[in-house]
Amino acid sequence: MVDFKRIIPRDLRNLIRKEEFTKETTGAALDYAQANLVILPKEYALDFLVFTQRNPKACPVLEITDPGNPEPKNVAPGADLRTDLPLYRIYRDGAMVEEVPNITKYWKEDLMGFLLGCSYTFENALIKAGIPVRHIDENHNDPMYITNIECKPAGMFKGPMVVSMRPILPSQVIKAVEVTSRFPKFHGSPVHIGDPSEIGIEDLNNVDYGEASTVNPGEVPVFWACGVTPQAVAIKAGISFMITHSPGHMFVLDMPE
Amino acid sequence: MVDFKRIIPRDLRNLIRKEEFTKETTGAALDYAQANLVILPKEYALDFLVFTQRNPKACPVLEITDPGNPEPKNVAPGADLRTDLPLYRIYRDGAMVEEVPNITKYWKEDLMGFLLGCSYTFENALIKAGIPVRHIDENHNDPMYITNIECKPAGMFKGPMVVSMRPILPSQVIKAVEVTSRFPKFHGSPVHIGDPSEIGIEDLNNVDYGEASTVNPGEVPVFWACGVTPQAVAIKAGISFMITHSPGHMFVLDMPE
Repeated sequence: MVDFKRIIPRDLRNLIRKEEFTKETTGAALDYAQANLVILPKEYALDFLVFTQRNPKACPVLEITDPGNPEPKNVAPGADLRTDLPLYRIYRDGAMVEEVPNITKYWKEDLMGFLLGCSYTFENALIKAGIPVRHIDENHNDPMYITNIECKPAGMFKGPMVVSMRPILPSQVIKAVEVTSRFPKFHGSPVHIGDPSEIGIEDLNNVDYGEASTVNPGEVPVFWACGVTPQAVAIKAGISFMITHSPGHMFVLDMPE
Repeated sequence: MVDFKRIIPRDLRNLIRKEEFTKETTGAALDYAQANLVILPKEYALDFLVFTQRNPKACPVLEITDPGNPEPKNVAPGADLRTDLPLYRIYRDGAMVEEVPNITKYWKEDLMGFLLGCSYTFENALIKAGIPVRHIDENHNDPMYITNIECKPAGMFKGPMVVSMRPILPSQVIKAVEVTSRFPKFHGSPVHIGDPSEIGIEDLNNVDYGEASTVNPGEVPVFWACGVTPQAVAIKAGISFMITHSPGHMFVLDMPE
């Protein structure tokens, strides 16, 4: 029986490549960083990169692959973005058309991959600091919401920030800010603490992505910028072609968290 | 008599725009951040941005302007990159052809401006920490050298890192690392401490840019990645058209250091 919490990233990616690990990567290879994936035709890449530069909390760029080359040389040499994530989503003209375990048949010479830091990375640090992470304890994907916080636009890319939420005891909120602020390449400190309606979220049970977490009486909802943001913005722009990871099915880097 | 050390950035930029301040910005508006400027036609912008992402210590991007729009909206609203630096260099086919106090006549709709963090920004913090900065004390531009440290290439952009050097007492080297590591968007911690030959520098008196600083017996040369790097790389690539600031004549941001 493989201990997926302690597996090293290369071994996990090999299992994923062989389609022997097909589920979400939450809680897997806990000591290593994880990333969101966005793959775009080169024609969109400049606007997209400018968007990420203007919205660094939501879109922290860890790696950009050369056109046509699926290897993320710097963060995971030898890996292949076409096969090493458990599940992908294919979008055409702003709509999801398919969900697939590898994207080999979709690969083209003009495609560029963007890996963006994922908040799963700081969750291990929160746990080590004594701050429980509810959606890990409840064994589901993290709850994500579209907010009324507008991102800074770039070319065709414009739209609201998506956030993830973790309910935290008031006595631990400051520590949660301190711990996550040490991960600037993985969304860093929160963007909002407290009343969800202040950032345009009406009902915490009504998620836009992922699954709702239980919020116990007295707990404070804390919100972090989420790497789903650039995907949501690209879909809204009606982008002609895009590939992303499926929610929760991230790319696992060789980089320790 | 204007106190240029204490002037606020907007006032300084207005004097520069009227060509009433025409010298180097070292030591001016000391409490505010300064930036290197690179202006490129849009066709080069994607490769350039990928290069900056892969070489963040040398190329920390603070702002990217939209094609044809010379206003850096985020770091200095109302400023104009065509007039608000004291001196510019115009390059064609990889060679400097002119040095001018404004670039209005060169401006075109496809040009994009890139502001990159400048190490002048952390010098005030070094001084406040009790670490003298030699080229400020000697009242000249900082000494810069081409090293044998290869940058990670991106498209047409490839070449060695350029560094700036400050001689520091052995007892203050650790503090210098600590202080500058708090400025990740302004080159951050040093890239090398000690023997210049280890990074391919034969003679500290033989600078590639700027002017040599006196290194007193017992002092340790400390080297930081320098924002001149992307310009040097673009020149080496024989880029058809580029505008940069002239060495030492930086853009002063509204952002406090």
